[in-house]
Amino acid sequence: MKFQAEIDIMPLKALLDPQGKAVSGSMKNLGLPEITNVRIGKHISLEIEADTKELATAKVDEACKKLLANQIMESYKFELVVLG
Amino acid sequence: MKFQAEIDIMPLKALLDPQGKAVSGSMKNLGLPEITNVRIGKHISLEIEADTKELATAKVDEACKKLLANQIMESYKFELVVLG
Repeated sequence: MKFQAEIDIMPLKALLDPQGKAVSGSMKNLGLPEITNVRIGKHISLEIEADTKELATAKVDEACKKLLANQIMESYKFELVVLG
Repeated sequence: MKFQAEIDIMPLKALLDPQGKAVSGSMKNLGLPEITNVRIGKHISLEIEADTKELATAKVDEACKKLLANQIMESYKFELVVLG
């Protein structure tokens, strides 16, 4: 079966996010002061071929740990949907 | 009311995504050849104060168009949830 994974990788809450802070500041200048607490991370979509959803979950988790996320600075979460 | 917006900004499907291509290649070297079609974009979370969900949606849409997404190269979508 083929699955599509949608992964969000965000800077840990305990860490400063300078890019997000800069964007929060820009919102004021753009006339959108209602917007605060901007945090910016990565969104990754990928396709994975696996026999079961459990196997696909394990593989995506391995990919996140080994390559996609830096667990010292980032947290990740993902969702899998069956394709086709 | 306070809302939390979760925004995904992805490179348009018609465009090459060199970062995603590079990661797809790395998956093979990592022993995860099942993973293909990696595309990498941004995930942005922010908080917004607005009277109604419709107003919040309009403001977040304006923020995406004006600052967060480059509509020539990227598409965006977002979800709003009520906070607290």
